[in-house]
Amino acid sequence: MAEHSLEALIEALRRLPGVGVKSAQRMAFHLLQHDREGALRLAQALQAAAQDIHHCERCHTFSEAQVCGTCLDPARDGRQLLVVETPADQAAVERTGSYRGLYFVLMGRLRPLDGVGVADIGVHALLERAADGVVQEVILATGFTAEGEATAHVLAQALKARGLAVTRLARGVPAGSELEYVDLSTLAHALSDRH
Amino acid sequence: MAEHSLEALIEALRRLPGVGVKSAQRMAFHLLQHDREGALRLAQALQAAAQDIHHCERCHTFSEAQVCGTCLDPARDGRQLLVVETPADQAAVERTGSYRGLYFVLMGRLRPLDGVGVADIGVHALLERAADGVVQEVILATGFTAEGEATAHVLAQALKARGLAVTRLARGVPAGSELEYVDLSTLAHALSDRH
Repeated sequence: MAEHSLEALIEALRRLPGVGVKSAQRMAFHLLQHDREGALRLAQALQAAAQDIHHCERCHTFSEAQVCGTCLDPARDGRQLLVVETPADQAAVERTGSYRGLYFVLMGRLRPLDGVGVADIGVHALLERAADGVVQEVILATGFTAEGEATAHVLAQALKARGLAVTRLARGVPAGSELEYVDLSTLAHALSDRH
Repeated sequence: MAEHSLEALIEALRRLPGVGVKSAQRMAFHLLQHDREGALRLAQALQAAAQDIHHCERCHTFSEAQVCGTCLDPARDGRQLLVVETPADQAAVERTGSYRGLYFVLMGRLRPLDGVGVADIGVHALLERAADGVVQEVILATGFTAEGEATAHVLAQALKARGLAVTRLARGVPAGSELEYVDLSTLAHALSDRH
């Protein structure tokens, strides 16, 4: 059992977020016993991604090109800039099919308790990006968590100081919800933001 | 966002057991944004493991050598052979420090509903291994699940038919448990197996 390659594999799998020692053992067992082709495919995908994927120099999302396809798309409206925390959030907005402007991906959020400050997420780059003379409205779509709200607050202040129109995604009752099961804070916001 | 390397990485991560599309996205984001060294280390560990790790020809556990260190250890008692489902189960027994015999690792269990039968786990190899003339007692330590119990039952019949002494791990109340929180089936077994 004290096999060096196996220990090293379990150790490397444990560095994945949300993977403890039991999950790492189960993953290693599965790959070695049932899916060696999957193990090799994952190894190749990791190497290719680490080598090829950089950040789009306009919106900061992951991109193999210097500027990503979304930023280069002439059909998109450069007057709107929607700010999200991660590429996954960007993908979620894209899936709605109801936004045709451009994006800026912070690649994180302010987390003062973990030492993640304004300099660690792309705040300065966002201010520079938003000052291109084309952007008219910056839509803040950071999460509605404490950290996401704080990030939105800091960004809103800095952007407004530069004369940009700043909006925030609406808070309210999720589609398909029954009111009695909606949490109090959401319901209070939905009431105060009624239109 | 429709970056080929990123899609390929997420797809490859999804092949890991227990990883859905959200977890795979989170893992890919973490590796690319915060831990590219971890991504490369995982790639190398996967390749090394897939290349180096085979099965011990005596006990079937994962091994880089033809015969694993445990099977070769002269301090271990060859008269006892403990049968487990996986290398992780073997490691759990080893951690108790209270077993000095040898092992046989089935690398699975009977799962008739998924088409995993006697030929798919190492039953024939176990019968051959147990017939080396040294083994006197085979200790069945498959799980106490329905499938583990069924596997133990099938193995016990085959081993007894060859004149070997077969035992099973004791069922009973786990250490540190209060009786009122122990499930009924466990308590009933603990009562009938009292000593």
